[in-house]
Amino acid sequence: MALTDRTTPQDVALNTDLYELTMAQGFWESGLNQGEACFNVFFRECPFDGGYAVSCGQGQIAELVENFVFNEDALEYLAALPAPGGGLLFKQGFIDYLRDFRMHVDIWAPREGDLIFPREPLVRVQGPVIDCQLLETALLNLINFQTLVATKTARVVTAAQGHAVSDFGLRRAQGPDGGLAVARASYIGGASSTSNVLAGKIYDIPVFGTHAHSWVMAFPTEIEAFRAFAKSSPKNCVLLLDTYDVHQGIKNAIKVAKEMEEAGERLAAIRIDSGDLAKLTKETREAFDEAGLSYVKISASNDLDEYTIQSLFAQGAPIDSFGVGTKLATCDPQPSLGGVYKLSAVRNSKEEPWLPKIKLSEQAYKRTLPGIMHVIRFVDDAGRPIGDQIVDDSVAVGNSTIAVDINDPLTTYDFTGATGIELLEQIIDDGKRCKEPDTIVVAKERCRDSLMRLDPAVKRFLNPQTYPVGLEPGLDKLRHELARTERRTASKTR
Amino acid sequence: MALTDRTTPQDVALNTDLYELTMAQGFWESGLNQGEACFNVFFRECPFDGGYAVSCGQGQIAELVENFVFNEDALEYLAALPAPGGGLLFKQGFIDYLRDFRMHVDIWAPREGDLIFPREPLVRVQGPVIDCQLLETALLNLINFQTLVATKTARVVTAAQGHAVSDFGLRRAQGPDGGLAVARASYIGGASSTSNVLAGKIYDIPVFGTHAHSWVMAFPTEIEAFRAFAKSSPKNCVLLLDTYDVHQGIKNAIKVAKEMEEAGERLAAIRIDSGDLAKLTKETREAFDEAGLSYVKISASNDLDEYTIQSLFAQGAPIDSFGVGTKLATCDPQPSLGGVYKLSAVRNSKEEPWLPKIKLSEQAYKRTLPGIMHVIRFVDDAGRPIGDQIVDDSVAVGNSTIAVDINDPLTTYDFTGATGIELLEQIIDDGKRCKEPDTIVVAKERCRDSLMRLDPAVKRFLNPQTYPVGLEPGLDKLRHELARTERRTASKTR
Repeated sequence: MALTDRTTPQDVALNTDLYELTMAQGFWESGLNQGEACFNVFFRECPFDGGYAVSCGQGQIAELVENFVFNEDALEYLAALPAPGGGLLFKQGFIDYLRDFRMHVDIWAPREGDLIFPREPLVRVQGPVIDCQLLETALLNLINFQTLVATKTARVVTAAQGHAVSDFGLRRAQGPDGGLAVARASYIGGASSTSNVLAGKIYDIPVFGTHAHSWVMAFPTEIEAFRAFAKSSPKNCVLLLDTYDVHQGIKNAIKVAKEMEEAGERLAAIRIDSGDLAKLTKETREAFDEAGLSYVKISASNDLDEYTIQSLFAQGAPIDSFGVGTKLATCDPQPSLGGVYKLSAVRNSKEEPWLPKIKLSEQAYKRTLPGIMHVIRFVDDAGRPIGDQIVDDSVAVGNSTIAVDINDPLTTYDFTGATGIELLEQIIDDGKRCKEPDTIVVAKERCRDSLMRLDPAVKRFLNPQTYPVGLEPGLDKLRHELARTERRTASKTR
Repeated sequence: MALTDRTTPQDVALNTDLYELTMAQGFWESGLNQGEACFNVFFRECPFDGGYAVSCGQGQIAELVENFVFNEDALEYLAALPAPGGGLLFKQGFIDYLRDFRMHVDIWAPREGDLIFPREPLVRVQGPVIDCQLLETALLNLINFQTLVATKTARVVTAAQGHAVSDFGLRRAQGPDGGLAVARASYIGGASSTSNVLAGKIYDIPVFGTHAHSWVMAFPTEIEAFRAFAKSSPKNCVLLLDTYDVHQGIKNAIKVAKEMEEAGERLAAIRIDSGDLAKLTKETREAFDEAGLSYVKISASNDLDEYTIQSLFAQGAPIDSFGVGTKLATCDPQPSLGGVYKLSAVRNSKEEPWLPKIKLSEQAYKRTLPGIMHVIRFVDDAGRPIGDQIVDDSVAVGNSTIAVDINDPLTTYDFTGATGIELLEQIIDDGKRCKEPDTIVVAKERCRDSLMRLDPAVKRFLNPQTYPVGLEPGLDKLRHELARTERRTASKTR
């Protein structure tokens, strides 16, 4: 989603679930629009059974918040919506309220490319309760998918061991915006380039491409197709070998590579897109080396993900670069991060103290954390993260470096002696950006550095170690107290 | 993707993979831009291990094709792109060619909402080879995801046995366009409504919503929250019971329902979003019935899909409607249709006969079908489809009603006596629409009728029967001949 490039202000405000608007009307009508709330975007489990996630999408929040207005066209649509039980869904007074509506929230978030763990705020929003509520769907729509793609890409890039990975996912994405989000987030997560031309233009990401099987099929013979491509793209020549038969394709490509040498050009690479990639790339490498063409690189594609790439290298496949499409763009096998947006505190006005809130559930994992939370990441002398502490300053016990595990209160972590770094930064003040977002190149470097410093046991795909995340003791105590009192008093029938 | 509403012409042409443009330049340079090609969008296996797919997205092809132009901004970007080996990627002559480029393709497609099976064209494109190539990515981006979502929804709606299903997926979609595509395709696939307000406005889909847990948490007590919502939305009142404790929530909701009755209003429904939905909905139904509130409906949500809904009804859960979000918007557990776009014929000019083409592969399932294909669906006297025949008229053996299975040439189907119906219709003639797309309401009705007529054995989720799809004998023969000759001659080194 590139709001300024592709979305009109009207779209921004209506790109939401209906209930955000009916709740906003309810808050407006019940006088609670004077009240303030604090909401957090977070997820409950790391995606892909992995040990971490890469925060992404936060760089586009400012565009969303600053452009959040209802124009006449949108208001006209809302004003005419019928209520299922008869009459209209929205009152004219509320429509008028929306006409003048501007966001007055304050927002904190981790930097794009920073690692993030379950229960930590991916975004923390504070402000008028209506403003907070109206942002829910759009924020989730923005953060959920990009964080998931950046995380998937980080895994693929880790498996690729320094070899280039290009995003080929546009054709399997959810429309143009889906493709743009994939390209942006995968670049931050570590991809070197994208096949998506529009993403290249909008985000200044390097674009990359070869040719398709159809190119070969459009010519009478494969070698004529190869020759024509070499002539047309001599400085960008990657030949696809598997249209008919890879072994014959190797012979034809070697022949054309020799012809290119005579013309003073060099075949950049070949690509294989089907069959046994481990076996075929070894045979290809051998044939090209024997022909004195060891400079020709080998590129592979075909339903790749972190597991197939890991397996290919385990088999010694001599692959120099990867095109990763479907499984990156759809984040197969986990196409959703499951990020949610939950209330954690309310107050009647800006002047009053916050009242922490939790949501309970029969399902323990659906219970939320209360308060105005921020995160301290503790790092050792080499800058390696050793654990995170979630803190609510209003209940913090001195400067405790103890953290109580969220799921297992009998486990505590002691970060004494480590250096604490603040993970969240304020990016929005009263509805306006108070800091320009980082460029995606900066976010990409941050992601790479963070992954380099992360314990390999947390990074591995199979049964990763759980990175320690705990509650500051005061927050842990508050959570237990609230769970008891909410059950007892808040649901009481009056 | 709603092109006219949300995408500028510049976006349409650049929403593509880079290799489409480098190939286009190659075709332009090698003189093959006089040539014509025929491409087909198709998938190789039904999604979700199911027995069918619902074709969707075709209604937006006309917007894509008619708006496919490169503006100066796009051309400037392309003209400046560097080639990896030095110099520029695109020649000035080709940039000038793109400046005047307009689509001159003819397109055939099945109607939206029609059932479609593996290997059948979801779109058939004919025309200048460059035009066909430049459409590839955008068509796949449009058709792949919407067909997948419509299919997923058809399954969910089948499981719901006539109870309403609402799309709640926006927050887990790939940006705003992803959310719009989900809403549009799920409506065609059988959803009654969407939570997505923008989709409601653009596509005229009924919008639906309740309230969130945050609504309850923003008030001092649950019952105050319920009362405030009933007051604000008396004609649209659905109360969410599981913020703290469902059993207390039931008592509070009954109390508020009685208060609403006194005020001459009616509580429409309650919603449960966590916990054991089978158990909790039964308890809720019982409590409301005992309180004389049997008119209050029960709505359920929480990571639902066709399997959980089927299981809930198998347990006798008294649920009246479903909100289905994450697993619908992401098409979990198969987030990609895997639709491809393959060349099936070429000719040197409009006046010459078509030369059929196939792509071979070590992997049998990656081999393609040749020719200018259309599909005849055979139906019995009751209008029930009994099998499909893929035909290339130029090689057809009389009016054969025999079809040879694509994967197993020893199996043939005999459709003698059944009525043949043409599945594809022409929608684009020389780059312009020659037929207005159906409304999504018409497509939705077509989908419902088609599913009603489909053999239940093909519709079931577990080990569905394979719907018979075969090649007209002439096409089967052509395919075998081509496979032999292509291997022998086309890859020959000259």
